[in-house]
Amino acid sequence: METIRKRSDKSPTLGIIGGGQLAKMTALAAFRLGCEVVVLEKQKEFPANSLDTHKLIGDWNDPNSLLRLASMVDVVTLENEFVDAEALAVVEQQTYHLLPSAATIRTVQDKLWQKQALSNAGLPVPRFADTPSIAAALGAASEFGWPLLLKKRRNGYDGKGNATVESAAELRQAWNHLGGNTNALYAEEFCSFKKELAVIITRSKGGAEAIYPVVETIQYDHICHVVKAPASIPVEAAAQAADIARRAVSAVGGAGSMGIELFLTSRGEIFVNEIAPRVHNSGHYTIEACECSQFENHVRAVLGWPLGSIAMRAPAAVMINLLGAGEGSGEAYGLAQALQVDGAHVHVYGKARSVLGRKMGHVTALGKSVEEALALAQGAATCIRFGIE
Amino acid sequence: METIRKRSDKSPTLGIIGGGQLAKMTALAAFRLGCEVVVLEKQKEFPANSLDTHKLIGDWNDPNSLLRLASMVDVVTLENEFVDAEALAVVEQQTYHLLPSAATIRTVQDKLWQKQALSNAGLPVPRFADTPSIAAALGAASEFGWPLLLKKRRNGYDGKGNATVESAAELRQAWNHLGGNTNALYAEEFCSFKKELAVIITRSKGGAEAIYPVVETIQYDHICHVVKAPASIPVEAAAQAADIARRAVSAVGGAGSMGIELFLTSRGEIFVNEIAPRVHNSGHYTIEACECSQFENHVRAVLGWPLGSIAMRAPAAVMINLLGAGEGSGEAYGLAQALQVDGAHVHVYGKARSVLGRKMGHVTALGKSVEEALALAQGAATCIRFGIE
Repeated sequence: METIRKRSDKSPTLGIIGGGQLAKMTALAAFRLGCEVVVLEKQKEFPANSLDTHKLIGDWNDPNSLLRLASMVDVVTLENEFVDAEALAVVEQQTYHLLPSAATIRTVQDKLWQKQALSNAGLPVPRFADTPSIAAALGAASEFGWPLLLKKRRNGYDGKGNATVESAAELRQAWNHLGGNTNALYAEEFCSFKKELAVIITRSKGGAEAIYPVVETIQYDHICHVVKAPASIPVEAAAQAADIARRAVSAVGGAGSMGIELFLTSRGEIFVNEIAPRVHNSGHYTIEACECSQFENHVRAVLGWPLGSIAMRAPAAVMINLLGAGEGSGEAYGLAQALQVDGAHVHVYGKARSVLGRKMGHVTALGKSVEEALALAQGAATCIRFGIE
Repeated sequence: METIRKRSDKSPTLGIIGGGQLAKMTALAAFRLGCEVVVLEKQKEFPANSLDTHKLIGDWNDPNSLLRLASMVDVVTLENEFVDAEALAVVEQQTYHLLPSAATIRTVQDKLWQKQALSNAGLPVPRFADTPSIAAALGAASEFGWPLLLKKRRNGYDGKGNATVESAAELRQAWNHLGGNTNALYAEEFCSFKKELAVIITRSKGGAEAIYPVVETIQYDHICHVVKAPASIPVEAAAQAADIARRAVSAVGGAGSMGIELFLTSRGEIFVNEIAPRVHNSGHYTIEACECSQFENHVRAVLGWPLGSIAMRAPAAVMINLLGAGEGSGEAYGLAQALQVDGAHVHVYGKARSVLGRKMGHVTALGKSVEEALALAQGAATCIRFGIE
């Protein structure tokens, strides 16, 4: 394991738990401000590896790995919420700087606790219930009606760990499929939404907030495919969504950039779906579209620097995810063709392998309207394939 | 020395000779496109070090170091022109990809040869003469008149290696100061310019060209302090400057992004001052101000990808260099204050030490006018100090 001499007479060093594309884009923003970055990852091949001199290979659920990381840097942050909160608490107990806090991660990483925290703060969430048994889940169904959502409390992402069930038979099947007897599950009322919205909020140590525009996210198979900024919704709805998101971040004691996913129903109601206590896919458009991106603002926030402007540089922006179309190398086939589309900004994460549905890169385009930006982004995105030639 | 397994089934790997801020900004653009980067540097501490996993410590004038670098990457490029051209030629002889070519570097790195190449191509340059002796230099003075410029043919930059002399006595003094008996010097007619202009041109392997807007550069003590984009000059002058720059790049067989410095005289004449066969300080504004920066276009060009749009995202942009104000650590004092200026984009290169006049970072701002952008950029730049608290 490499040891780093902390250079306190220079620009600060940022520690990131996890080395995926979110760490990579955060590091790119940090480098521009003269920072150094240390990434803690479990294995040697990871997206941020291509740019990070100081890497630490270790288990991020092992307090000793986290303490080693903390001793090398000025502040520790994370790119995913699946880090053991008790291990994080050890970092804080040793008086190292950690943002967001172990308490925030503990609350957010358990979706039931997250929902409880939001509900206790008076925020609108779909009805939910703890379901320690099939009987409890059937009880929730009789209370909320069918369909019912059954969710793993922990470690679910991109729809993995969720099931929508229509009957008692389906519920029993899903319970077994999700391993309900060993993985704690909870139940949620099915929310028939018209649009899915998201807001990135950056909260600094001092409590200052940068609230990015409310965007619309288009998901297929529970994976975000397209983000449209700003969302085509009434001004009042956008203001309400932003206010709810702000209060949601506050309810979990958030710090740094966070993504808040919301539902907008056909009756105009807004519910909080989920909080991600980290930079978020729905905010990738901010790299080109906003004065200061979610990544740079995250760096600024955790280092105690003032937050930058969230003003958009164009009336509209669209981001399209580039997902693996199959198993294969990480090569971006068709990249040269995509680069011919002027105004489309192509990001390739540099992952070693493509897997079906894996996030391999994204394209962002700006425009006078969402339609114009969408056409540009699609023009480039459709050229690129991962996993199939 | 670290050995790298070239991953030809993935995105390409770029080799950069030199690890300063130009390499760092080039690498940041390359990473976004999923590339890997290997930097060859003489010592362990260099700006691009903070972000480059694959570094090679070696002498870039040693063909063996260059060959080692070439064997690790898909294409070799450089961030400065002071690399031995004969050593570069060895890389080409071994059929590795090198852009720009050894021939271009050989011509450009000798300012006399560069002037001859430009003059032979019919391009307007101030009159010049080879001065192998003091007698020859005095002969040039009697032909061109006083003041006369005496310049080192090689390894001069930021005015280092230049002298403006007003008399035979001053000429003799400058000759000795520049070490004229051991360093080859040449003489140039003093050009009384009204403005200094610059153009970045990216030329791809296939001959495609991206010609960035003509900018005005403000120098003090021969160091670029401010770049204003676009230059406030008549449209015809801008078109002429762009055309001359394009032909100048062609005259030296350039490839990748290059900076062409020009003089505009009060009579409206345009002369080529100098070519830099690499990304250039006068093009840093393109990171935020243009659809595709000089760095991304350089990466695209040397990898054989199509060039991106040079369209500006705002009517005007200004870049201000952050220079070391004295000897000291590399810390950017006042950075937090500078980050409070919305719309100012602060770049800190992360150099370990500040030296008086050393380029430590820069600030870019966009605006509706050059004046508006200048005010914003100055607002941030004046907050930051290197080398003094």
